[in-house]
Amino acid sequence: MNQTLGEAAAVQTLRWLDGHLEMIDQRVLPARFEYLRYHCAAEVAEGIRSMVVRGAPAIGCAAAYGVALEALRLRQASRDRFDAGLEAGFQVLAASRPTAVNLFWALKRMRGAWESLRDRTVGEIANALLLEAHEIAAQDVRINRAMGAHGAALLADGARVLTHCNAGALATAGHGTALGVIRSAVEAGKRISVIADETRPFLQGARLTAWEMVQENIPVTLITDNMAGHLMSRGEIDAVVVGTDRVAANGDVANKIGTYMVAVLAQRHGIPFYVACPLSTIDLTIPDGAAIPIEERAAAEVTGFRDCQWAASGVRVRNPAFDVTPAELVTALITEAGVVPQPDSQNIAALFAT
Amino acid sequence: MNQTLGEAAAVQTLRWLDGHLEMIDQRVLPARFEYLRYHCAAEVAEGIRSMVVRGAPAIGCAAAYGVALEALRLRQASRDRFDAGLEAGFQVLAASRPTAVNLFWALKRMRGAWESLRDRTVGEIANALLLEAHEIAAQDVRINRAMGAHGAALLADGARVLTHCNAGALATAGHGTALGVIRSAVEAGKRISVIADETRPFLQGARLTAWEMVQENIPVTLITDNMAGHLMSRGEIDAVVVGTDRVAANGDVANKIGTYMVAVLAQRHGIPFYVACPLSTIDLTIPDGAAIPIEERAAAEVTGFRDCQWAASGVRVRNPAFDVTPAELVTALITEAGVVPQPDSQNIAALFAT
Repeated sequence: MNQTLGEAAAVQTLRWLDGHLEMIDQRVLPARFEYLRYHCAAEVAEGIRSMVVRGAPAIGCAAAYGVALEALRLRQASRDRFDAGLEAGFQVLAASRPTAVNLFWALKRMRGAWESLRDRTVGEIANALLLEAHEIAAQDVRINRAMGAHGAALLADGARVLTHCNAGALATAGHGTALGVIRSAVEAGKRISVIADETRPFLQGARLTAWEMVQENIPVTLITDNMAGHLMSRGEIDAVVVGTDRVAANGDVANKIGTYMVAVLAQRHGIPFYVACPLSTIDLTIPDGAAIPIEERAAAEVTGFRDCQWAASGVRVRNPAFDVTPAELVTALITEAGVVPQPDSQNIAALFAT
Repeated sequence: MNQTLGEAAAVQTLRWLDGHLEMIDQRVLPARFEYLRYHCAAEVAEGIRSMVVRGAPAIGCAAAYGVALEALRLRQASRDRFDAGLEAGFQVLAASRPTAVNLFWALKRMRGAWESLRDRTVGEIANALLLEAHEIAAQDVRINRAMGAHGAALLADGARVLTHCNAGALATAGHGTALGVIRSAVEAGKRISVIADETRPFLQGARLTAWEMVQENIPVTLITDNMAGHLMSRGEIDAVVVGTDRVAANGDVANKIGTYMVAVLAQRHGIPFYVACPLSTIDLTIPDGAAIPIEERAAAEVTGFRDCQWAASGVRVRNPAFDVTPAELVTALITEAGVVPQPDSQNIAALFAT
C-alpha cells in the first residue's frame, strides 16, 4: 500500500516548483504520498491549520514561503495594494497555529527583510522575499545537521531510543531535529533502534516517524503512547529524544501532547531525556512554560481518526495539542550551537550572548 | 448512531437465556449494541480471547458459564465422556487469557463444585454447575456494590475522577469495580465528573466507559491517554480510580497497559490513586508484580483500529496488554472487605486471615 521514495531521494517536505510552493500532504501519509500546491498566503495558512504541514521548523518554512507567494502574487499591484495585501498575508499566517514559535520567528524575519527593502520596487521586493524564504529553508537543514552532529555524540552504539510525535524530515525542511539526531548517529556508524510512540490523536508517530525510519531501514518499533512506561520499567529504553514547538527562557519545553508524561517516566527510570531544539525555537519573551499558549483542537480528532469514529455519542472531549515539560526534567537541550545540559535561565541566556 | 438502553435497564454484560449464555459484543460497542449466543466452553473461550467480553470479573463469570454450558451440553453423555469433555472445557477456558486472575479463580471454584458432586449423576452435576455460575455472577454484583460503598466515601463532592480502560458494568456482572465506586458516589448524591482515558489500542475508555457514563447521565470527558499528565499539571484531576486484572501478594497491581504511567503522574502531582479490587483479584501465589505474566497481543491492534489501519508498512510492533503498578504508587486498594491504605504484604495477608 505505502508508496516509497526512490533510493536516492530524501524526504522533501516543502519544495518550490514552477513558481509555486508544494508541500507533502502529511494528513494522508503513509497510505498516500502526494504533494499539494499553494498559490497564496491564505492557502498556506489553511495548510498549516489543517496540518497538511506540521512540525515547528516546517511550519516556519511554510509561513516564509507563504509570505513570498503573497508578494509574488501582488507583484503587478500598486505599492499601496501590495503593502496592504502583504500585511494581510502576514496576519492570516500568524493566526494559523498559536503554539509553534518558529512560525512567529519566520514571519518576523520575513518582515525584517520586507522592511529593509522599502525603497525597492514591488517586483524587487517579491523576488528578494522568495530568496529569503529559500534561505530560511536551507538554513533549517544546516541547523538540523549541526544539531544532529552534537546530539549523535550523546547516543551510545546499540541505543534503543524512544521518540514522541514526529520531529523528523517531515517536521522540517530536511534531516529533522530529534530524528536528525538519530540519522546523524546512524550515519556515524552507530546501531540505533527507534521506539516510536504512535502519538494520538493525530498519529504522527505511527504514520510519519515510522514511515521515515522504514524508508531509511532504521529499525523502528511502534507502540501506543501508554506503553512507554512499561518498556522503561523493563529496561527496554536507553534514551528519549524529542523535538519542541517552543522553549521558554527558563528551559521549560512545549511539545506535542504526551511529551510531559514521557519525561516524568524517564526521570523515574534514570533515562536521559533530550530535546532537539534549534535556537529559533527558544522564545526569550516567555519567562516559563505556564505562559506558553496551548492550542486546543477539534473534538473529532479525539473521538476517532479521520472517517473512523469510535467514541460513544454524547461524550465531551478535551484536545490540548501540546503540553509543557518543566526544565528540571530535561537532561539536555541539543541546539545547533551545542548541547546545553540541565537547561535554565542562565545557560539559555548564554546561548544568545555570544 | 449509538443505540441506548431503555430507561430502567442497567447494562447486563452476560445473561442466561433459553438455556444458553449471551454476552454483549463489546468489540462493536458503541456503534452497535448486540448480544452473541454461546453454546459450549470452546465458544466462550474464543469469546474471551477475541474480547467479545473483557474485564477481569466479567471474564471470570464468562468462564464459569462456559463450564456450565459444557456440562449441560454433555448431560446425555456417559460418565467417562462427561468427565473427559468437561476437563477439556476447563483447559480451553484456562488458555484464553493469561493475565486475568479471576479467570483462574472462577475455574477453580467451578472445579471445586464439580469435585464435591462426584457421587451425583451427570445431569445433577450439570444443573449444579449452572447454579454455581449464576451464584458467581450474583456474588460479583454484591461485591461490586460493597466496593462501591467503601470507595464512594473516598471521593469528595465535586470530584473530577480520572479512570483508565473500562472497569465498569461491562467489565463485571454489573455495577462495575472502578465505575462502581463512581456510580455509588453518584447514588450517594455526590456530583462526580469522569475523565476517561481512551485506552489504546482497544479503546475501552472511548467506547465502553464513555458509553456507560453517557447512558447514566454522569458527566464524562474523553481524552487520549497522553493527555492525563497535562490535565494533572493544570489541577484538573482530583482522584484516579482504576480496576485491576491481578494484584500480587505485595500489592503490586497488574492492570490495562498505561495504568502505570497514570500512577506515576498521580504520585508526582499528589493525586490519590485508588484501585478497585475484589478479593478474587488478589493472587497470593504471586509474590510481586515481576512474576505476573503479561499478555502480548496482535500487532494489528496497534497499527490501527479494526479495519482502519494507519501505520507505515514494515514497522515492528510491541503490544503488551497490561503493565504493573508497584504497590508504593497505590494510595489504597478498595475491596468488598474495606479500604486498604498503602497496600503491602502484611495488610493484604490480613484481609484473608479473618
